[in-house]
Amino acid sequence: MYLIIVGLGGIGRSLAGIASENGHSVVVIDKDEEKCADILSLHDLLAIAGNATDKAILEDAGIDRADALVATTSDDALNLMACWLAKKYAVKTLVSIVNQKEHADLFKEVGVRISENPDEIVARSLYLWSENPDTQLLASIEGGSIFEVTASEGAKGVNRTVKDVSDMKDMLYIAIRRGGKLIIPSGNVTFMPGDVITVFTKKESEGRSVEYMDELFH
Amino acid sequence: MYLIIVGLGGIGRSLAGIASENGHSVVVIDKDEEKCADILSLHDLLAIAGNATDKAILEDAGIDRADALVATTSDDALNLMACWLAKKYAVKTLVSIVNQKEHADLFKEVGVRISENPDEIVARSLYLWSENPDTQLLASIEGGSIFEVTASEGAKGVNRTVKDVSDMKDMLYIAIRRGGKLIIPSGNVTFMPGDVITVFTKKESEGRSVEYMDELFH
Amino acid sequence: MYLIIVGLGGIGRSLAGIASENGHSVVVIDKDEEKCADILSLHDLLAIAGNATDKAILEDAGIDRADALVATTSDDALNLMACWLAKKYAVKTLVSIVNQKEHADLFKEVGVRISENPDEIVARSLYLWSENPDTQLLASIEGGSIFEVTASEGAKGVNRTVKDVSDMKDMLYIAIRRGGKLIIPSGNVTFMPGDVITVFTKKESEGRSVEYMDELFH
Amino acid sequence: MYLIIVGLGGIGRSLAGIASENGHSVVVIDKDEEKCADILSLHDLLAIAGNATDKAILEDAGIDRADALVATTSDDALNLMACWLAKKYAVKTLVSIVNQKEHADLFKEVGVRISENPDEIVARSLYLWSENPDTQLLASIEGGSIFEVTASEGAKGVNRTVKDVSDMKDMLYIAIRRGGKLIIPSGNVTFMPGDVITVFTKKESEGRSVEYMDELFH
Amino acid sequence: MYLIIVGLGGIGRSLAGIASENGHSVVVIDKDEEKCADILSLHDLLAIAGNATDKAILEDAGIDRADALVATTSDDALNLMACWLAKKYAVKTLVSIVNQKEHADLFKEVGVRISENPDEIVARSLYLWSENPDTQLLASIEGGSIFEVTASEGAKGVNRTVKDVSDMKDMLYIAIRRGGKLIIPSGNVTFMPGDVITVFTKKESEGRSVEYMDELFH
Amino acid sequence: MYLIIVGLGGIGRSLAGIASENGHSVVVIDKDEEKCADILSLHDLLAIAGNATDKAILEDAGIDRADALVATTSDDALNLMACWLAKKYAVKTLVSIVNQKEHADLFKEVGVRISENPDEIVARSLYLWSENPDTQLLASIEGGSIFEVTASEGAKGVNRTVKDVSDMKDMLYIAIRRGGKLIIPSGNVTFMPGDVITVFTKKESEGRSVEYMDELFH
Amino acid sequence: MYLIIVGLGGIGRSLAGIASENGHSVVVIDKDEEKCADILSLHDLLAIAGNATDKAILEDAGIDRADALVATTSDDALNLMACWLAKKYAVKTLVSIVNQKEHADLFKEVGVRISENPDEIVARSLYLWSENPDTQLLASIEGGSIFEVTASEGAKGVNRTVKDVSDMKDMLYIAIRRGGKLIIPSGNVTFMPGDVITVFTKKESEGRSVEYMDELFH
Amino acid sequence: MYLIIVGLGGIGRSLAGIASENGHSVVVIDKDEEKCADILSLHDLLAIAGNATDKAILEDAGIDRADALVATTSDDALNLMACWLAKKYAVKTLVSIVNQKEHADLFKEVGVRISENPDEIVARSLYLWSENPDTQLLASIEGGSIFEVTASEGAKGVNRTVKDVSDMKDMLYIAIRRGGKLIIPSGNVTFMPGDVITVFTKKESEGRSVEYMDELFH
Repeated sequence: MYLIIVGLGGIGRSLAGIASENGHSVVVIDKDEEKCADILSLHDLLAIAGNATDKAILEDAGIDRADALVATTSDDALNLMACWLAKKYAVKTLVSIVNQKEHADLFKEVGVRISENPDEIVARSLYLWSENPDTQLLASIEGGSIFEVTASEGAKGVNRTVKDVSDMKDMLYIAIRRGGKLIIPSGNVTFMPGDVITVFTKKESEGRSVEYMDELFH
Repeated sequence: MYLIIVGLGGIGRSLAGIASENGHSVVVIDKDEEKCADILSLHDLLAIAGNATDKAILEDAGIDRADALVATTSDDALNLMACWLAKKYAVKTLVSIVNQKEHADLFKEVGVRISENPDEIVARSLYLWSENPDTQLLASIEGGSIFEVTASEGAKGVNRTVKDVSDMKDMLYIAIRRGGKLIIPSGNVTFMPGDVITVFTKKESEGRSVEYMDELFH
Repeated sequence: MYLIIVGLGGIGRSLAGIASENGHSVVVIDKDEEKCADILSLHDLLAIAGNATDKAILEDAGIDRADALVATTSDDALNLMACWLAKKYAVKTLVSIVNQKEHADLFKEVGVRISENPDEIVARSLYLWSENPDTQLLASIEGGSIFEVTASEGAKGVNRTVKDVSDMKDMLYIAIRRGGKLIIPSGNVTFMPGDVITVFTKKESEGRSVEYMDELFH
Repeated sequence: MYLIIVGLGGIGRSLAGIASENGHSVVVIDKDEEKCADILSLHDLLAIAGNATDKAILEDAGIDRADALVATTSDDALNLMACWLAKKYAVKTLVSIVNQKEHADLFKEVGVRISENPDEIVARSLYLWSENPDTQLLASIEGGSIFEVTASEGAKGVNRTVKDVSDMKDMLYIAIRRGGKLIIPSGNVTFMPGDVITVFTKKESEGRSVEYMDELFH
Repeated sequence: MYLIIVGLGGIGRSLAGIASENGHSVVVIDKDEEKCADILSLHDLLAIAGNATDKAILEDAGIDRADALVATTSDDALNLMACWLAKKYAVKTLVSIVNQKEHADLFKEVGVRISENPDEIVARSLYLWSENPDTQLLASIEGGSIFEVTASEGAKGVNRTVKDVSDMKDMLYIAIRRGGKLIIPSGNVTFMPGDVITVFTKKESEGRSVEYMDELFH
Repeated sequence: MYLIIVGLGGIGRSLAGIASENGHSVVVIDKDEEKCADILSLHDLLAIAGNATDKAILEDAGIDRADALVATTSDDALNLMACWLAKKYAVKTLVSIVNQKEHADLFKEVGVRISENPDEIVARSLYLWSENPDTQLLASIEGGSIFEVTASEGAKGVNRTVKDVSDMKDMLYIAIRRGGKLIIPSGNVTFMPGDVITVFTKKESEGRSVEYMDELFH
Repeated sequence: MYLIIVGLGGIGRSLAGIASENGHSVVVIDKDEEKCADILSLHDLLAIAGNATDKAILEDAGIDRADALVATTSDDALNLMACWLAKKYAVKTLVSIVNQKEHADLFKEVGVRISENPDEIVARSLYLWSENPDTQLLASIEGGSIFEVTASEGAKGVNRTVKDVSDMKDMLYIAIRRGGKLIIPSGNVTFMPGDVITVFTKKESEGRSVEYMDELFH
Repeated sequence: MYLIIVGLGGIGRSLAGIASENGHSVVVIDKDEEKCADILSLHDLLAIAGNATDKAILEDAGIDRADALVATTSDDALNLMACWLAKKYAVKTLVSIVNQKEHADLFKEVGVRISENPDEIVARSLYLWSENPDTQLLASIEGGSIFEVTASEGAKGVNRTVKDVSDMKDMLYIAIRRGGKLIIPSGNVTFMPGDVITVFTKKESEGRSVEYMDELFH
């Protein structure tokens, strides 16, 4: 894959690292020359200092043969315009961070795959932990969330089968991590102390599901 | 809950907003006076300009009656020391961002609940999207990941039951979003065009699971 | 007219002055608080410090009842997004500076009336003057330009009628300024010393037209 | 032509580009070393970092053999002094931006060809567009202005000759742009849909002329 | 006297102090608001923050009733334009620092009384002292200089009359300072130990005059 | 002479130029590396970036063989200490600017030859000119001042001898500049139009002397 | 005591705290207004923003009735001049930090009590610790040093009297800290585990003394 | 010894100098590249620009073979984390400055040898001098302090033996400096004028001890 990354903030830098380590051709664009120099010393990629809405810069970056462009800056206007220009060059896959929720529609009109503000995602999970330190929110989707619990030695749910402890409606066991292995929890699997249990719950039942798991495994 | 938030970067600001809107008592600490003034104009909370490793500041923030402290700065050393001091004041719940993976152990020794570098989490999902633009990675846990697919009109899997399309080992249907509703996918549920389908897969089968879902629903 | 101006550079400031002096309701938006304070002390208008791509800011500016939005910043991405958001709010008239020619198409797709880079316009006329100091380029349109010549005492064309000196194809007399008055040059008007003569010429004949006028009036 | 340009703001940079592309010998002077380095990498010219009122700098720039000096900075005092010094060196053509109208007289006393504040020119045209989005002001001279209208399909004036729609006093058709061609509108030319019509009007009749054209062609 | 001072560097500040302490009406103009605020707290005068080439600023400063304008900035272009504008307002007395010798002619053409670069004046006297530490150069005029010597106890010239030690051509005794008193040295005055003797000499004889005085009084 | 100059402000730079052009060995010391680099490109001398109160720096500058050290910074404390250290190294001649009059005594105790604040000297002469534009104050000493007047055509004093117009007590003719020549005004010299006349006056009679000269020569 | 402190770095701030808590009248002088404002909010004292070599500032600080002035800035020239000026005002006690050893003599000539560069003192003790982590250097005087050792359980010297373990020449027991108490070590005192033992040693025997104590108490 | 120093403030710089001059292998780490470059030009050591809590940086610094790490920054959180990471690498000796007293416990838990805030140490001794200018506090330990007095000619204690003037309880003579020599004060030693006498006293008797010595030796 030939990938152009716009912006070298924390996210852009991480993405550049992942993509180049996976053997893709990566070009990064950032206004800051120093950041460009830094990333060059770390990974095997091309870095261009300039404005990603400048066609000359995009062409230097090889926009006409790029498979994907990912915009990661904190400036939605820049992200949007860079994606739109990339579309004019027939780049197939356009992905962008959207820093302000209200801008999501404009990106969608241009046909960009968007990720909501990452700071909000993290803040939400920190919030839930500070309320329930033993519960780790993994993700939230419209209407539901996924969380993780660790089974304590001697807890009620330990040594019982999945089937036995499935009377909670609106909740579903997704996975059990035991030692280095991951188990898909069919009904006959028995919970053991130390199991890390991943659970899905409807949002309206989140409170009750967390309590239910608490009671069983802590 | 009485919550102290250290740091007013993007994550700290979001967290302050969520927590105060949920009716908690929130105190934020940041070195930058301007950021403190800004947040005060947006939410109903207390903001203190100062260094969160300074005991006088922590006491001004009410550390002795806090239920939780969440450290969100980009400086791990500051996060670590603030958490440790909070522990000395018997704060029950300690949560922190860890910016460099290698520091995780120190936080764990102090008993802090940590969140990995958020930039890396987001970068990873952007990376997967740029490879599979129609697949949305929702979360990844050790050994597995959760993703979402939207069922196209006329796709092979449409109008078939969950049971019918469950021959993929190491994969599990978690939820179906249809209109405003969320359905837990028991075996008899029938997929419909437009359904947003959430799926869990073991990591070693991620490639095949994505292909399988592609074939069924696109 | 209810007019929103985005950006308080030289152009934005001038525009704010003209529009408010003409009795319109004017709101200006700029990121720089100082510039907002300055303009408030000079004109009767409303100034908002903030990002014009932020919906809350646009709403504070009364975007829902604005007749026109004019984007004047040097950042095309910002200009574009502000116009597009304004369109979503059904603002009828959208006008913008376009700093890089290559972006013109995107603005047109959104339905924005654009002005080319003003620096280039001025530079072009300075260039022509430095070549022909006595000729003043007034404007250039696709395929033609308009310039001005002052008739010297005793020049060949003086005391002759417009008709007499109209054998130059691709050129047209537009106006004659004499004393404080402006005359539309019908065929019988006689040129007098000191007349400032405005002329239109096709671009391909610009060189010859300038020479022709030089010969007649200098 | 041997041309010295003072100042590397937007206008100076554009002018440097135009003049060097037209094969002239160009020297630019700006206080900012970085701007000098930048322009060198773009065009074939000489750039000198320094103060253009410093005789040593002017001499390095070859003032004694220059045909023209164009001052483009935003500092009128600097523009004026640079022009005056150039005059002492017998530079034939002196051209300058005048940022504040009230300074125009001083420049004229020195014998400098001046251009009014470019920001005001642009602001004025943006202002007219925001009032009449379909009318484009092209230029304004003392006592008159030049504007452009696009003829809509089915408008009243379409399919009529220039002569037929010339009953508006104080107004003159200057040019018609049709496809790629430009037509000088003699009386028998017939207007067609899509024609871009350039018109001159006396200032006192500007309002009525715009209305008249509106009625005919929209 | 109504005096406008342009620039609040060291010289401008000193001048403002002297003039206001002498009971004149003083207005100072400087671009820097802080400097304006500072001077207001020290003296009884008016201070205006702004550009002295801006007519509105000059009018705020009362240029139409000013008796004199003194330009003291380190920017000759600014000094020149401020003086020229003042002349247009019929200010009778125009005085300016000239920082670069080569600009002196322009100021003279405008009719400005100029002072050479003050740094050079001081440097010259420091230079002479470092060569002749006991001789103090007081001033230099075209063709001559004025210096001071202190008569040592027991020196040859002590106890002799002015007339007795006047055989040096091209040199003239100007004054003798004795105790708190100042004496005009008529021929019969006798030099005494401790006398501070002020002497004028033609430049071409400066070396010999200094030696002569050295021999007599050290 | 081996001369060390401390400080590269305007005065220091001028002094460095004068001294090196006169063939002396010059070393300059300034904290600012850029200023050091600049002066090196202009004159034949040695420049050291550093603090002149640092013995290592002074030794690098060759303090042990220096004939003179001249301190020209705007920081009296630095000037004083640099001079004092130089004295410890047996530098014979110590000269310094004194920025605040009140510090003069400390410098004298160390044995430093001082120059009063140069800004005040210049300001005083500007002040006198703005009062008497035709009179140029050349210098002021304790109890007296020296000024210059130009004799107008047809003035009363013209064509009269020095003796004839010497009835003003406390005033003395010092020199007459006529054409390129300088004349010591013995009693029989006759004043001519255009003569530039240098005069000494006791301070208490300054007003009357100026009036007297005005009457005679304007 | 009426105390003036010059400089609000770390040392100046600490000193201001100690002195004002001990009930003295304290005035601090620092160039930085912000530091002055900060210290005012912490202690009951007077803070003046300005240059401590400015007599007006010193007089505002009450120099004529001060008992002591302590100069704590990192600029020796400033410290020296402030002390010297204070001496002129008959301040009895003058104390100063000396940042560069070589300046010590100048301070002594003025009669100032000096403290060597504090950074060097601390660095020296850190250096010794990094060599002998169990030994704490407390102070060093000319020719000797004072250090501290903690007696381990079961060490050879434990349960023996001071007299018994005093065969090391050039070394002296100064004090024993046991629990909260401090004991002057007369010959019959018996060492106990946990004792913190303070010892004096001649410098030439420092190595051997440290070894001796090591052997006895570790 | 292989020594890593964190931080290049005054203390870090001094320490680096001492340690490298004593022939140890020294590596310094500081965030500021300039400070790293400076120190390299002065001493024979290795300097690394970066964050000392970054494992990659620590490994570059050779943490796995270091004998000691000394943290000298003004940021306690950074000092603490650097020490803790060093401990994980089995560095035997850990030493750190502690800037805020209240943090001392955390460092001790990690096993770090700490030095109290050096600014406070110096401030305390300056304070004592400003009270007793003739007494020099050398060090203070829990419960006691060490100070120095110089014996004046003709003072009461002079010419008496140590034993004779030892009736002050809670006080001990530690050393006498006479000429270049240092004497351990056994009972028979006789005090002589000019002796510098080092004394230990319990804190609760400090006042009385100082008075006692004053009486004897001043």
